[in-house]
Amino acid sequence: MALARIARNGCRQSGGATGRYAIIRDMIREESLSVSKSHSPFSGSFTAFQQPVKPHSNLPFFSSIGRFPAASFGCRGLRMTPQYEYAHAQAAVEESDSEYENLKYPTLEATKPGEKPRVVVIGSGWAACRFLKGLNTKLYDVVCISPRNHMVFTPLLASTCVGTLEFRSVAEPVSQIQTALAKDPNSYFFLASCNGLDTDKREVFCETSADGGETYNFKVAYDKLVIASGAEPLTFGIKGVHEHAFFLREVSHAQEIRKRLLLNLMLSENPGMSEEEKERLLHCVVIGGGPTGVEFSGELSDFIMRDVRQRYAHVKNYIKVTLIEANEILSSFDVGLRQYATKHLTKCGVRLVRGVVKEVHPNKIVLSDGSDVPYGLLVWSTGVGPSKFVNSLSLPKALGGRIGIDEWLRVSSVEDVFAIGDCAGFVEGVGRPVLPALAQVAERQGKYLVELFNRVGKEGGGKASFGKDVPLGDPFVYKHLGSMASVGRYKALVDLRQSKDAKGLSLAGFLSWFIWRSAYLTRVISWRNRFYVAINWATTLVFGRDNSRI
Amino acid sequence: MALARIARNGCRQSGGATGRYAIIRDMIREESLSVSKSHSPFSGSFTAFQQPVKPHSNLPFFSSIGRFPAASFGCRGLRMTPQYEYAHAQAAVEESDSEYENLKYPTLEATKPGEKPRVVVIGSGWAACRFLKGLNTKLYDVVCISPRNHMVFTPLLASTCVGTLEFRSVAEPVSQIQTALAKDPNSYFFLASCNGLDTDKREVFCETSADGGETYNFKVAYDKLVIASGAEPLTFGIKGVHEHAFFLREVSHAQEIRKRLLLNLMLSENPGMSEEEKERLLHCVVIGGGPTGVEFSGELSDFIMRDVRQRYAHVKNYIKVTLIEANEILSSFDVGLRQYATKHLTKCGVRLVRGVVKEVHPNKIVLSDGSDVPYGLLVWSTGVGPSKFVNSLSLPKALGGRIGIDEWLRVSSVEDVFAIGDCAGFVEGVGRPVLPALAQVAERQGKYLVELFNRVGKEGGGKASFGKDVPLGDPFVYKHLGSMASVGRYKALVDLRQSKDAKGLSLAGFLSWFIWRSAYLTRVISWRNRFYVAINWATTLVFGRDNSRI
Repeated sequence: MALARIARNGCRQSGGATGRYAIIRDMIREESLSVSKSHSPFSGSFTAFQQPVKPHSNLPFFSSIGRFPAASFGCRGLRMTPQYEYAHAQAAVEESDSEYENLKYPTLEATKPGEKPRVVVIGSGWAACRFLKGLNTKLYDVVCISPRNHMVFTPLLASTCVGTLEFRSVAEPVSQIQTALAKDPNSYFFLASCNGLDTDKREVFCETSADGGETYNFKVAYDKLVIASGAEPLTFGIKGVHEHAFFLREVSHAQEIRKRLLLNLMLSENPGMSEEEKERLLHCVVIGGGPTGVEFSGELSDFIMRDVRQRYAHVKNYIKVTLIEANEILSSFDVGLRQYATKHLTKCGVRLVRGVVKEVHPNKIVLSDGSDVPYGLLVWSTGVGPSKFVNSLSLPKALGGRIGIDEWLRVSSVEDVFAIGDCAGFVEGVGRPVLPALAQVAERQGKYLVELFNRVGKEGGGKASFGKDVPLGDPFVYKHLGSMASVGRYKALVDLRQSKDAKGLSLAGFLSWFIWRSAYLTRVISWRNRFYVAINWATTLVFGRDNSRI
Repeated sequence: MALARIARNGCRQSGGATGRYAIIRDMIREESLSVSKSHSPFSGSFTAFQQPVKPHSNLPFFSSIGRFPAASFGCRGLRMTPQYEYAHAQAAVEESDSEYENLKYPTLEATKPGEKPRVVVIGSGWAACRFLKGLNTKLYDVVCISPRNHMVFTPLLASTCVGTLEFRSVAEPVSQIQTALAKDPNSYFFLASCNGLDTDKREVFCETSADGGETYNFKVAYDKLVIASGAEPLTFGIKGVHEHAFFLREVSHAQEIRKRLLLNLMLSENPGMSEEEKERLLHCVVIGGGPTGVEFSGELSDFIMRDVRQRYAHVKNYIKVTLIEANEILSSFDVGLRQYATKHLTKCGVRLVRGVVKEVHPNKIVLSDGSDVPYGLLVWSTGVGPSKFVNSLSLPKALGGRIGIDEWLRVSSVEDVFAIGDCAGFVEGVGRPVLPALAQVAERQGKYLVELFNRVGKEGGGKASFGKDVPLGDPFVYKHLGSMASVGRYKALVDLRQSKDAKGLSLAGFLSWFIWRSAYLTRVISWRNRFYVAINWATTLVFGRDNSRI
């Protein structure tokens, strides 16, 4: 039983970072917590009991499997079991274990002695890919599981919606980032969604959707597990968002937005369209004034001013962009930059509206003040929250429902499980705030963790339950390097302050735009995409944006 | 009534091309036909009565409108009405005319005196786009109606399926080909399908599908109409083709093929896949040994040899390509080239099979000899036949169901209507064979017709019923310039013979491949796409093909 194992781990004390540990322990004692802590990098038994800790088997998220009788999963109710109910919990877990035996899914079996340890990475975003990129595959076999086979260079995604960049220029195949996935005999990429996790048996449950709706289920055993499955857009339970709004997080989202935009431009030219209907079709509404919303609005106004006026001359006076935000746009940026952005966007024709969305209908949104906003295209970017998969996991959680991790990015109280990126957050006991859901944070966590893995792997600690005696090294510390956002028309904001309240350099205008482009160009992962992004930018400048609806 | 008008036109004789006319008349007399022929470019009243000529109102293809009571369309039964039933036909047509009055669709009304004449072009393929490109928009307003807003550079489409080229590099927006469509106040591009034609009132019936399945119907009045709506893939009524096979005629088809191919490559790596299932998933079957089928097979084998071996090393030995053809591959090419292609494809691992498909099931095809061929990807390219729209038109037809045209590309017996490209064919009376469905033919017809239009327009004959006195000029003569097909691995075939039985130069190998690439590079319409095709080829050579599944 995992709990028993954790209890044992709690008694063992290895060396390393004791000084720091003492500080943290004191800090936690101040909060009158009973804490037992291991210094092994591979058993994050840091149990902070304000959090709902579920140290027993982490049962899978079965809602999407749905072919087994619901009765077998009575154990799901155990997710919130506090420690004093341990006896009951254990009984139930044992029962669920026996149920598991019946799930005869094809399995990538656990590694045998003498074989390389297997690291399983869930996800293919910034955190996962940075981790994969750096992994020493002489030490580890690696398996990556994700429903998409590429990483998306998210900061440039808004540019693809209007044709400034090609879709493919912002997508990097995972097997190019870590070539072992394609070549090494025991490393794999699986195109699948994870829907469950058994930390006792160290198995991940996966489901692949083939075309035609058939699903294929299988299990993958791990020595070490890295959860980097990301987050999902927040909709605050508002009716109609999922049905009618577009998100902007995947290449497929950008493709859909582009198709709808071009469709509406063409539909509005049809004979007999009323003025009102033309205005509705060509009203692009963006909800959320964060960097994504602002960059998309900027790109859209660029597209309108540069391309729509020439290529859709009949309807050019009908197209409008409205950005709706409940508070202030770009709230994390310096006040001067915020003012600059507001002024610039308004000048470019973007209407900025303070408002809160109440309901979303097929052709209009209703604001909380009761006013209707008809739209033809609705893009929703109001931040992210935990995914269904993360919600379903019986792991300790941090504030906001993220997977609870300690300073070494280990999932508290579970052995050999790590979490990085948007899906993870420090448990309260660490005494540090949950980091923002930024590519920058995710990438830095991936880099930190892979270095830790490579060090531990070198010292022979890669196998399941191994590596407890390898010193942890320094904990993960995040230093914010600054934020950037483009606002369209060759203008951008660069905010180099380390936090919202700190002082530091902030720039806005053409120079910032140049820095923004150069910075992204150097960070696009492969030379191929670096080349294509540059070429796309150049051809957009020379020939304008392509408007074929493909 | 159109018939009355045609009868009148038949009596008028304008000058020009009389010599040729006499020859044709004699030729037709030999076939004991009663022919009356006008020499006006804008009333093709060449009635060859072997064809089912329906000189009355051409009623729309209503099956997809479906919101009017079926009773109103009793007139559809008139499509085959021979001339001796004229009295009845006229009564019915008048009845249908009054029914029409009830179809209160929004309409782009007929041009008024003093306005520029309006040319309506149906389609956006080779023929339509070549016509659009050359049209003198000082003389004409132009309306293009097509369900896609771009032209597809079809000879390079096979390359996009495997990632050698980007999808966007082979698509050219119609509004870039003819900028008047976007800019001129009375010229338009309508994203719509045509579903009917009223040659009496000179109106085209259109239907736009918005996202969400709603349709919007409207009508467009024309002075001159050019039908270039293309053809549809032939399936010979074989069960399951439409449901399970992919065609390769649109960018969306290539996108689907690519997605399926990459999906199957990844699915086959999943734990627990049986050997049999892996072999099925990775069996790519191509039906039809014409240039498209051969080029796609060649690209696929290239992709396998160059990219799959490296990027999908676990399953590289399972992927196979089979090309099934009932007769000989590339039957229109020189015998030496055919042998070369056969040898080369076999060497590249493409299995060539003689066979006839009987049925297509989700995971296997059944050949007429009873054998089963399991497949993971099925591409169907067995040539093209008339589309639903063309079938529904009550116009004279040529052999094979195409719209019947005379040597000046006028639709026989109907005023101001022309047809070019794959949807058109010479009526039998012309005494010339129906031309093959080739891009080359379509482009040449578009070029010929637009020159004729510009000449007539200059002499003031652009308006409806005008231009009858403008000399026709030389009739359209097609001279085959030769055929090209790439067979993969830097090899291609170039056949410069003018016909199947003629003698002439034919080449195969690397030099041909170089000619093939250069020829296409110069023919890709815009500089933007020419540049991108070259860049795509270069990056494929340097970095290999991209394999992100987006």
